[in-house]
Amino acid sequence: MSDVLVVGCGLLGTSLGLALQGSDLGDVTLTDRDPENQGAAVARGAGRPWDGAETAGLVVAAVPPTAVARALFALQRLDIGQTYTHLSSVQAQVQAEIEALSPDPSRVVGGHPLAGRELTGPGAALADLFVGRPWALCPGSRTAPDALEAVRALALRCAAVPVEVAPDTHDRAVALLSHLPQVTASALAALLVPARGDAAGEEVLPVVLAGPGLADTTRLAAGDAGLWTDILTANATHVAPLVADLAGLLAAAADALGRVAGGDAAAGAEVTALLRRGNAGRETVPVKRGELAGAFDRVRVVLPDQPGQLARLLLAAGEAGVNVEDVRVEHVPGRATGVVDLLVDTSEAERLNAVLHGSGWHLV
Amino acid sequence: MSDVLVVGCGLLGTSLGLALQGSDLGDVTLTDRDPENQGAAVARGAGRPWDGAETAGLVVAAVPPTAVARALFALQRLDIGQTYTHLSSVQAQVQAEIEALSPDPSRVVGGHPLAGRELTGPGAALADLFVGRPWALCPGSRTAPDALEAVRALALRCAAVPVEVAPDTHDRAVALLSHLPQVTASALAALLVPARGDAAGEEVLPVVLAGPGLADTTRLAAGDAGLWTDILTANATHVAPLVADLAGLLAAAADALGRVAGGDAAAGAEVTALLRRGNAGRETVPVKRGELAGAFDRVRVVLPDQPGQLARLLLAAGEAGVNVEDVRVEHVPGRATGVVDLLVDTSEAERLNAVLHGSGWHLV
Repeated sequence: MSDVLVVGCGLLGTSLGLALQGSDLGDVTLTDRDPENQGAAVARGAGRPWDGAETAGLVVAAVPPTAVARALFALQRLDIGQTYTHLSSVQAQVQAEIEALSPDPSRVVGGHPLAGRELTGPGAALADLFVGRPWALCPGSRTAPDALEAVRALALRCAAVPVEVAPDTHDRAVALLSHLPQVTASALAALLVPARGDAAGEEVLPVVLAGPGLADTTRLAAGDAGLWTDILTANATHVAPLVADLAGLLAAAADALGRVAGGDAAAGAEVTALLRRGNAGRETVPVKRGELAGAFDRVRVVLPDQPGQLARLLLAAGEAGVNVEDVRVEHVPGRATGVVDLLVDTSEAERLNAVLHGSGWHLV
Repeated sequence: MSDVLVVGCGLLGTSLGLALQGSDLGDVTLTDRDPENQGAAVARGAGRPWDGAETAGLVVAAVPPTAVARALFALQRLDIGQTYTHLSSVQAQVQAEIEALSPDPSRVVGGHPLAGRELTGPGAALADLFVGRPWALCPGSRTAPDALEAVRALALRCAAVPVEVAPDTHDRAVALLSHLPQVTASALAALLVPARGDAAGEEVLPVVLAGPGLADTTRLAAGDAGLWTDILTANATHVAPLVADLAGLLAAAADALGRVAGGDAAAGAEVTALLRRGNAGRETVPVKRGELAGAFDRVRVVLPDQPGQLARLLLAAGEAGVNVEDVRVEHVPGRATGVVDLLVDTSEAERLNAVLHGSGWHLV
C-alpha cells in the first residue's frame, strides 16, 4: 500500500508528488490516462508508477472538475483507497456528484489548493508550488472526521495553509478572487492584439514602453484557454454577475474620462472616486508579506537538491520557535542547488541564523 | 555648478538623485517647494540642498505634468541650467507648452522613465528604481541634438533603456500599456470592497483564499488616487476609448457566461475565444526575462552599501563583453549590503563569474 495515489500527472498532480517526497507521505504512486505524462512525472521523481491494483491511504484526483467524479468513484468501487480527495477549482458541483453517486460519500473530501502556474504539464511541476498557499478543504455533510484530517495532513505536508470552507462559499469566493481576475487579465491582454503591428512601424514601439504593471496585470492571461473555459463555465453562475459588475464600472469610467476629454474637468472627480475605491479594495488583498515594510528580515539558506530538504528546513525553524512569515524558493536553472529565503520577524532573524548554522545548514 | 538639479523630491526625484550618486553625474542639487521633502531627500543621500542660485548642467523637473512647464521655464529664465528635462507620464500636452512658452525650446527635452512604485514620497525612493526600465525620450521638432544626448546620458547613468519616441506616440502607447491597466486594476479592486464583511462572518473567509493572481492583478490599485487622476485626465483623449473597449469585451463575456449558466453550453466557445485572444495578447508583453525558460543563468553578487556600486558592477560586466539580460536587486532590510542577481546567457555565466571574482567582487 502506498501513502498516496495521484490520479492525473499534470502540473498539480506532479507537483503534489514532488512536494510529498521525503515526508511521511512520501511513498507516492502515479497514474495518468496518458502514459507519457505518467512517465514524465516518474522521471521527475514525483513517485512510482501505479500498477492498477495497489491500494493507497489517500487517493487524490488531480484531474479537471468534470472528470473528478468518474475518476474517484471507479477507484472507490475497487476499494483502492482509504480516503479520497480532489483538487478541483470548483467545488459545489463536484460535491453534489459525490453526495449523489459515491459508493461511500463519508470517505470523500473536496479540496482545492489555491496554487498554479501559467504553464501546464508534468514538466512545469514544482516541489514548492503549494508552499504558503491556501488549500481549501470542503467537507460535505456526511464526511467522516478522520477523512477530513487525512486531507488536512496532506495539505500540511505540502507546507500549504488549510482553510475549511463550505463548497458553495468556496465557489463564490474563488469567483471573485480568482475567476474574475482571470477574465479581466484575458480581456485586458486581448486589447493588446491589434498593437502587434499589422500597420505602421510605430505600432511595434509601444510594447517596448511597457512597465512591470502591464506584466503583472496580464500575467494570468497566459493561462490555458481550455482549462480556464472548464473552470469559468463550471462556476458561470457566480462569475457572470461579477464580470457584468466590472464591465459596468469600466463603462462608467470610460464615460467620465470621455467627458474630461471633452472639456468637463469636473468629471475627473468620478475618476478619483473609482481610484479611491480601488485603494480601499486593494487594502483587503493579502500580499506577499515580503512587500510589507521593514519589519521582516531574511534568512537565506542554500538547499541541497535532495527530496524533503525544504520541509526539513521549515521543521528546524519551527522547532526553534521561530515564526516563518514567508518562504521564497529561488530556482537556479541548471544547478543542483536552490536558495531559500525565510522571512522572519527582525527580532528573530539572528537567533534563526544561529540555530540553522548550528544544525549544519549553509547560510548565505 | 552641479551636474544635475532635481526639482521635486518625491519618489522619482529622490530615486533619480540616489541613482546618480557615484556616477559622473553624481553632484546633484535638490529642491522642493516642501522643505520637509527636500530635507528627507538630502538625508537619504540623494544630493545636497539647492541654494536657489547655483547653476546645473541638467535641470530635471520631477513634478506632476501640470506643474512641469511653470517649474522649468522659471528656472530657464534665470538661466540656471544648460539643458532641461522632465519625467512626465504624459508628453504631448507638456511638449505643446514647451513649444509655445519656453524661452528656448531647443534646450528642453521631454522624458519619461517607465518606473514607479505604489508608494510615494522621498522615503519610498530606490537607487535602482530605473534599472532595466524603458526611459522614453520625446524630443520636439526644435530640440538641439546635444540636449537630447544629455538626457539620454542621464537615462543611461540610471541603467535605464532609452527609447526615442514622438510625444503623441508616447501618449497613445502609455494609454494602452500603463493607463488602461491602472484603471482596470482599480476597478477590479473596487469590487472587493463589499467583500470586506459588513454582513455575515463568512464574508471574511473569501479573502483568505486569494492566490497570487489577485495580488498581481490588483497591485496597481494601491497607486495614489490624486496623482493618477492627474495622469488619467491629462491623457483622457487616448484612455477613454480603450476603457470603453475593455468594458465592451467584459460585457460580452458576462453575457456569454450568463448563457452558460442558463444551460447554453455552446456559449462556452465565446469564453474560449476571449481566453485565446488573451493568450495572443499576453505573448506581446515583455516579461521579466528571468521568467523565460532556462536559457539564462544567474550570477549573484554581494553589493557593498556604497554609492555607485551597481553601476560599477554593470560596467565590469560590460567591459568583459557579457550581455546582462536582467538585473534584480534584493533589498535586505536593516542590513548594510544588498545582493544583486545578474541574468546572463548560460554560456557566459562561467566567464562572468571568473571575471568578477578576479576583480574582487564577492560572489555567492
